[in-house]
Amino acid sequence: MKALLIICDGMGDRRCASLGGRTPLEAGRMPSLDWLSSHAECGIMDPIAPGVRAGSDTAHLAILGYDPYKYYSGRGAYEALGAGLTLNHGDVAFRCNFASLDSQGRVVDRRAGRISGEEAQVLTEALQENSLSNNVDFELQHTVEHRSVLILRGPGFSRNVSDVDVHNTGATVPECRPLDNSKEARRTANVINEFVRSSSGILEKHEVNSVRSSGGRMVANAILPRGAGVAPELPSITEKFGIKAVTIAGGALYKGVSRAAGFEIVNVKGATGTMDTNLEAKMMSTIEGLRRADLVFLHVKGTDTASHNKDVQGKVTMIRKIGKSLEYVLNHVDLNKTYIALTADHTTPAEIGEHSADPVPIAIYGHDVRSGGTTQYDEAACSRGALGRIRGLDVMPILMNYLGRTELFGE
Amino acid sequence: MKALLIICDGMGDRRCASLGGRTPLEAGRMPSLDWLSSHAECGIMDPIAPGVRAGSDTAHLAILGYDPYKYYSGRGAYEALGAGLTLNHGDVAFRCNFASLDSQGRVVDRRAGRISGEEAQVLTEALQENSLSNNVDFELQHTVEHRSVLILRGPGFSRNVSDVDVHNTGATVPECRPLDNSKEARRTANVINEFVRSSSGILEKHEVNSVRSSGGRMVANAILPRGAGVAPELPSITEKFGIKAVTIAGGALYKGVSRAAGFEIVNVKGATGTMDTNLEAKMMSTIEGLRRADLVFLHVKGTDTASHNKDVQGKVTMIRKIGKSLEYVLNHVDLNKTYIALTADHTTPAEIGEHSADPVPIAIYGHDVRSGGTTQYDEAACSRGALGRIRGLDVMPILMNYLGRTELFGE
Repeated sequence: MKALLIICDGMGDRRCASLGGRTPLEAGRMPSLDWLSSHAECGIMDPIAPGVRAGSDTAHLAILGYDPYKYYSGRGAYEALGAGLTLNHGDVAFRCNFASLDSQGRVVDRRAGRISGEEAQVLTEALQENSLSNNVDFELQHTVEHRSVLILRGPGFSRNVSDVDVHNTGATVPECRPLDNSKEARRTANVINEFVRSSSGILEKHEVNSVRSSGGRMVANAILPRGAGVAPELPSITEKFGIKAVTIAGGALYKGVSRAAGFEIVNVKGATGTMDTNLEAKMMSTIEGLRRADLVFLHVKGTDTASHNKDVQGKVTMIRKIGKSLEYVLNHVDLNKTYIALTADHTTPAEIGEHSADPVPIAIYGHDVRSGGTTQYDEAACSRGALGRIRGLDVMPILMNYLGRTELFGE
Repeated sequence: MKALLIICDGMGDRRCASLGGRTPLEAGRMPSLDWLSSHAECGIMDPIAPGVRAGSDTAHLAILGYDPYKYYSGRGAYEALGAGLTLNHGDVAFRCNFASLDSQGRVVDRRAGRISGEEAQVLTEALQENSLSNNVDFELQHTVEHRSVLILRGPGFSRNVSDVDVHNTGATVPECRPLDNSKEARRTANVINEFVRSSSGILEKHEVNSVRSSGGRMVANAILPRGAGVAPELPSITEKFGIKAVTIAGGALYKGVSRAAGFEIVNVKGATGTMDTNLEAKMMSTIEGLRRADLVFLHVKGTDTASHNKDVQGKVTMIRKIGKSLEYVLNHVDLNKTYIALTADHTTPAEIGEHSADPVPIAIYGHDVRSGGTTQYDEAACSRGALGRIRGLDVMPILMNYLGRTELFGE
């Protein structure tokens, strides 16, 4: 028996006025999704708990079976691991965004006008030239689009520092502040502030920005580190359940969380972690992964990206793409030997543009599961299914039960 | 107001190919079960938690209101109590099986060809002659079919030893091993190994086995102790809720768990804890029990036995018997003054033959409960009922709420 866990980032939604009161899943209804929900146990899932607004990092930890209240060690850590970097004991890692500031230092766009990956890559390389006081050793690596990872190589640093980021445009970029009185936290904050300042100098006069500026596009004149994290210490999925697991994802964070949990990361050409990702290539890798592993975790980012951009129609389009890809999967796996869970890591209402705490739909297909009563894959339909309301931490034990991998408690 | 809690062991199931994709409950549909679900609050119940594969012991503890993570003290203890034995502080009890080994000491059948209770009784008596080193005091008592209980009378013993049992036939019987470095655990393992060895000598030449052998039946040439347990310390159900409770069960384990919780055990003639149990006699005792107690816990084992034997049709037949008995109950209780909960302690998919972690259906009838929407008693139908998804530990507080026995928290 094999299991496929498909997590579509931020796919859950609310009723959208622009869709005539439907959710994007209701509007994007596809035959493959209808088929899945009709042959699956359906339900709704709180990634962490009802009313808890989950980040993608904590939500994925929970869904992969790790209590985030126990294991979460800061987003930067998972971004670093996902970027293929080594994170040693004592290092502190940050997720960074290229951003656009106005002349008063206020944020105009937290993603520098969704700067291209190629441009961001060039800028990241330029920032390697940063020379920090006291020969502080750092590593900066570009990941996807406007995103990169910064690692301060320890010892002597702390993850207990504030973010150099704002939640809303229009605000001034804050300084990094120590969140405790330790020497390490104060040193970390100072180093980060120095890095942000000296980076601004390099970015302001970089050719990439001159070209963007003359083309009327927003310049990436700041880099904003946030989510300080240290190397996570998770028992591996193999230790926990005795399985071999594989991850297929474009985004660094998802690779990082599952790499920390001992998943093998498959790098798929064209899996960009954006809306133009090559879903077909990912599905082919998924089918291949199911041949040699017990569990494949497949991540699709586009639904969340569209939601953050408040692009309701783009989300519907992405859902239709997912439906088409699911059809490919259903046609290529042994449906008598494969359990398929389709869910989201959290809800991102596309008319709001930010993560919310609403539960997400979940469907678990299997030849012998207690399907029945559900004929559509969407938030309201799934809530009437056989699974009832579960939590993110329940998903992996439920799947492992189907794979016959759970230990008996008592006898 | 009275409450009747009917637990049908292992009754939950999945869709069975041999039933055309139905579950045994869907295939064994009976008017009484339909009536109950139509007039009950229905739901699904995780005996422990989603994805946790429960033994019958831990599941019953939970459903009777005792957190197994806090109170579970090993299966042997409950088997001993259920057999009517006294378990003192310092004693260690084991559940034992008669088994059939081949000449290389490999297990051919863990239940000695489902040896009859009469034969097993004779063999158990013969094993009383075992004389162990250092005058170790032990007690061995037959319970049902191939099952018996062994108590090592303390002090100086430990429950922290491994099972002398295998999960699959074909494997060699393992030695009992100490699971910590204590003198007590090492001594216990030594005594158990001596008991197993000397029992084999007695069993090999016993007349019961000669007769079985000449009749071409499997011999019971080994006794395998497992599930070391010590006297449980549970607050009684009367202390917890101020009620008088009665248990009607055939199997020793179920009598034992409820005896530990202060239930009065009614021994019903013909209640064998097997598939040929006299359900009518148990139902008559149930009606009688409801006259003098607030709560009757009725246990039916046959559904689990059929499941472990991968006897899908036998399970359907057993469910129909349960339906018929339920009709008797419905005709003989005051339906305005009795709440009736019908559920299972865990799922045992009959095409798999082992406990799984899938939730079980539950229906709670009462003249004033919030029934509605459910017309069948099965896994998928109940999941759409008014109870939603609950846990084993919720059942007793819910029933006590209907009996008006729960304390107000706050005011």
